[in-house]
Amino acid sequence: MPRRRASERPRISVLRVGHRAGRDPRLTTHVALTARAFGAERLYLHPPDVELAGRVDRVGRQWGGTFAVEGVDDWKKFVRAFDGTVVHLTMYGRPFAAVAPALRRSKSILFVVGGAKVPPQLYGLARYNVAIGHQPHSEVAALAVALAELRGIPAPGAWPGATHAIVPMERGKSVERIPAEGE
Amino acid sequence: MPRRRASERPRISVLRVGHRAGRDPRLTTHVALTARAFGAERLYLHPPDVELAGRVDRVGRQWGGTFAVEGVDDWKKFVRAFDGTVVHLTMYGRPFAAVAPALRRSKSILFVVGGAKVPPQLYGLARYNVAIGHQPHSEVAALAVALAELRGIPAPGAWPGATHAIVPMERGKSVERIPAEGE
Repeated sequence: MPRRRASERPRISVLRVGHRAGRDPRLTTHVALTARAFGAERLYLHPPDVELAGRVDRVGRQWGGTFAVEGVDDWKKFVRAFDGTVVHLTMYGRPFAAVAPALRRSKSILFVVGGAKVPPQLYGLARYNVAIGHQPHSEVAALAVALAELRGIPAPGAWPGATHAIVPMERGKSVERIPAEGE
Repeated sequence: MPRRRASERPRISVLRVGHRAGRDPRLTTHVALTARAFGAERLYLHPPDVELAGRVDRVGRQWGGTFAVEGVDDWKKFVRAFDGTVVHLTMYGRPFAAVAPALRRSKSILFVVGGAKVPPQLYGLARYNVAIGHQPHSEVAALAVALAELRGIPAPGAWPGATHAIVPMERGKSVERIPAEGE
C-alpha cells in the first residue's frame, strides 16, 4: 500500500443513500465511524438522521478531528453537484485495481455506498462503479478497504482537539487523557 | 499491497466472540460475508447462531466456495486449542504495520473480533493484539482491511461450485448463471 504525503492525498467524503433510521442505525454508525477513522472529511447521509449525527459528533469530541455527519435530502441533486470524482462502491462494478490510478490522481472523491437496496440511477450518476471484490459482503468493508488503499492505515497518535487518545499496547487498554489548552 | 502466490498465503479463519443473536444479526452477517469474500475459510461464532449460519450457507450455494459458519460454545478453550497465530483485532493494540511481517510468515491465522463488549481475557489469550487504526470504528472494517492487506482484494471470476458469478461492468449489473455439470 503506497504511503503518500498529505498534500498529495485526495480529499474524501462519503455519501450513504437509503439509510433506514429505524432499521440500520448500527450499520450506518459503522459506516460513519469507518469513514472518520480512515480520514474522510464528511459522511453525507440520505435521508438525514439527527440522532446518528449527534452520536458521531460525541465520538469526535472525545477522539478529535473535524469529521461530521450531514443530512442530505435530495441525493441525486447532491451527487450531480459534487465537485470531484463520484465513486459508487458496488460488487457489480469494475475491479478496484483498474480504477485506482485515476482515483489517486483525483483531488476530491465522493464514495457512495448504498444499503440493502441501491437506487438504479446511482450507476448512471457515478463517474466510476467500483467493486472491492465481486462477492456479496458489506458496505462497511468495501468502504474501509477503499479508504485504506488510498490513504493507508492511520498511524497512532492523538487527533487535533481530542480529549483522549489510545496508547498502543501489546496487551490490554491504555487511554491517555489530553489536557485542554490552559488546563 | 503485495500479491502473493496462493501457496505462500496464510490460511485464515475468523472468530467472533460475544455475538448477540437478537441484537446484531446484521452486523455479524457483515462480519461473516466479509470473512468469506476476502478469502477466510471459516467464521467461528460464539455463541452459535444456526439461523445466521444457514443464511450464509445460502450465499455460498449461490456464489460458490467452501466458507462456512461454525458455532463455538467455549471460545476460550477454542482459542487455546487453535493451531496457529491468534490475532485479536482491537483499537487498543499495536499498529498493524508492526505485526504484518510476522503475520505474513504464519501458516494459519485466527482473527478474533469482538462485539460491543470484548471479554478482557482475550487480550491475554491472543498472540497479538493488533489495531487497524487507533480510533473507534467497526469490527467489519478492521477485519476487511486486515484480510485485504494479507490476501489482496479478490479478483473477479466465478468461485468453485458457484451457480452465479458477477461480470464486472462499468454501469449496471450483470450476473452470469453458471450451468451445473451435466446440465
